[in-house]
Amino acid sequence: MTAPSLLQRLAVQHPIIQAPMVGVSTPELAAAVSNAGALGSIGLGASTAELGRVLIHRTRQLSERPFNVNLFCHAPARFDEARNNAWLAHLTPLFEEFGGEPPQVLKEIYTSFVADPAMLQMLLEERPAVVSFHFGAPQADWIAQLKAAGILTLGCATSLAEARILAERGIDAIVAQGAEAGGHRGVFDDRPGQDSQLGLIPLLRLLATQLDLPIIAAGGLMDGASIAAALLMGASAVQLGTAFILCPESSATPAHRAALLGARGHDTRITPSISGRPARGLPNRLYLGHLATGVPVAAEYPLAYDAAKALHALAARKGRNDFAAEWAGQGAPLARAMPAAVLVATLIEEYGRARA
Amino acid sequence: MTAPSLLQRLAVQHPIIQAPMVGVSTPELAAAVSNAGALGSIGLGASTAELGRVLIHRTRQLSERPFNVNLFCHAPARFDEARNNAWLAHLTPLFEEFGGEPPQVLKEIYTSFVADPAMLQMLLEERPAVVSFHFGAPQADWIAQLKAAGILTLGCATSLAEARILAERGIDAIVAQGAEAGGHRGVFDDRPGQDSQLGLIPLLRLLATQLDLPIIAAGGLMDGASIAAALLMGASAVQLGTAFILCPESSATPAHRAALLGARGHDTRITPSISGRPARGLPNRLYLGHLATGVPVAAEYPLAYDAAKALHALAARKGRNDFAAEWAGQGAPLARAMPAAVLVATLIEEYGRARA
Repeated sequence: MTAPSLLQRLAVQHPIIQAPMVGVSTPELAAAVSNAGALGSIGLGASTAELGRVLIHRTRQLSERPFNVNLFCHAPARFDEARNNAWLAHLTPLFEEFGGEPPQVLKEIYTSFVADPAMLQMLLEERPAVVSFHFGAPQADWIAQLKAAGILTLGCATSLAEARILAERGIDAIVAQGAEAGGHRGVFDDRPGQDSQLGLIPLLRLLATQLDLPIIAAGGLMDGASIAAALLMGASAVQLGTAFILCPESSATPAHRAALLGARGHDTRITPSISGRPARGLPNRLYLGHLATGVPVAAEYPLAYDAAKALHALAARKGRNDFAAEWAGQGAPLARAMPAAVLVATLIEEYGRARA
Repeated sequence: MTAPSLLQRLAVQHPIIQAPMVGVSTPELAAAVSNAGALGSIGLGASTAELGRVLIHRTRQLSERPFNVNLFCHAPARFDEARNNAWLAHLTPLFEEFGGEPPQVLKEIYTSFVADPAMLQMLLEERPAVVSFHFGAPQADWIAQLKAAGILTLGCATSLAEARILAERGIDAIVAQGAEAGGHRGVFDDRPGQDSQLGLIPLLRLLATQLDLPIIAAGGLMDGASIAAALLMGASAVQLGTAFILCPESSATPAHRAALLGARGHDTRITPSISGRPARGLPNRLYLGHLATGVPVAAEYPLAYDAAKALHALAARKGRNDFAAEWAGQGAPLARAMPAAVLVATLIEEYGRARA
């Protein structure tokens, strides 16, 4: 008797996971992807346990198929006043430009899963088929509890060292996130200079040759040819995020959708200046500032995000989109506007052709 | 009658090019690779026309097979005194640490091919099978002359926009260089912030779907599985550099060879601080400095390289390797120490297995 493959354990037909994208993915998107035979995901990184339960129920109303629930596992904010105040001072002229002022106090708008036992309890009660972690993973005991509840656990790694930590904690499979990927880098250590930004090909080959866990390839994958290539390089499945942004089931804004296929889509960048942790997206006025002389280190995650969201809201009231967080991966110009079910079918058809 | 494939035009058996690596590749390496049925390369970026002719003759003594000759096509230095003096001032404490002082005047140690008609004349006389360009390309008229002499021309692109410029100049095929690649980024515009560092997968899929020229995939490719993946994604051939550094035929130093497989190999970085143009390698003490506050922009290419080489020579005389330029791609930990012929045979064997 051989061990069941990752696909069998995921209980899905196609080796494709729709990436959880807080702010963009929805229960409607996850359900449409799962109903199409792939694995949909919802992100609870910005949710309380109560809201997480609502989102899981909503997804279950729309699909009886398995889906994935993603949690953020960052180190909780330490409220380093000097660092955070320096960042607010840096943002003050931008707030003033739109007739406002920065928040007096920055709030920890997202509670890390590692500090949220109520979320763990909710997951153990609801038992989604798959739970995935970003920015690290919870303690081994929590992972063991989730696994004992019949939940398949996935952890995101951007390096071999991170993947080994996840393996030691008992994770079932690794999401290998190449630097091409849109949204937040999964790096455990978010200090400037700590991220070596491995591209998917070398990351995947390193993990496939040196680790004894199933690997899910992520980053820059937009079509069936790249899916076939990732599987040929040793991935058991793939995870696509940017490819799903233009689906009508996503909650991406019209501006985000339009920009994805424009010039900015050819020049995505990684910046810590939006949320406090490095993330790839379509550059806005907060990008690249950290490369200039005299710009302070961004406030802690997610405190910087609180400020960036306030700045965006202020500018948006004046009709300006200068500070919108429009995450996107390097494959953005290859994104296609299709209903999720059509996109999954198209990817599978292309995948079959590429293999032939 | 269909047009000959790139492989037919390269007149090689295997779709593998050994990347030109000035300082590491040698006529011996190029000849061994070409004799093994792939395409060897020598780099003339640091050579005069006279030395280039010697290197071509030396390679021809060792192999009757086709090989590739690479030229640097950067904009010649403008000798911006303020910029270059600021860089020398930044380096002064490092020179002093080893009991020396920085050069009084920085020299343009490499003449760009675009300003070297003697090199063009030599190439037209010697007629190597393939000539490739880095950091842009010469004027269309020069490319036309090389093509009229029966030479196949390759140009390196890191973006769709650069690839389109090369196509307009009449280049025969595009080397798509992903950000994973070791050594100098081929970016045309080397100003800080201009490089969007596309990973190979999205770059290759963009070029393969939007350009009507053969594409050679480069960056992070270390084994047959990744070669098969690149060809599946639309490449006509692949180019590997870091994979060949450990070959006995390369001129890599013992320190470089040892470091490639160590911890530094897992954390390669792109820095302009060695040569003046962004390049990926094993971090030394000059790396990452440009991310710190108050560090000036590196001197112009190749003037900064003149200073870095002087600093390395000074430290090396004291037995220290702190400033060696040890280029490496993100696949470094996957490099294998094998004679070039064995490596080519191994890659082809792995490629066959991956396809099956």
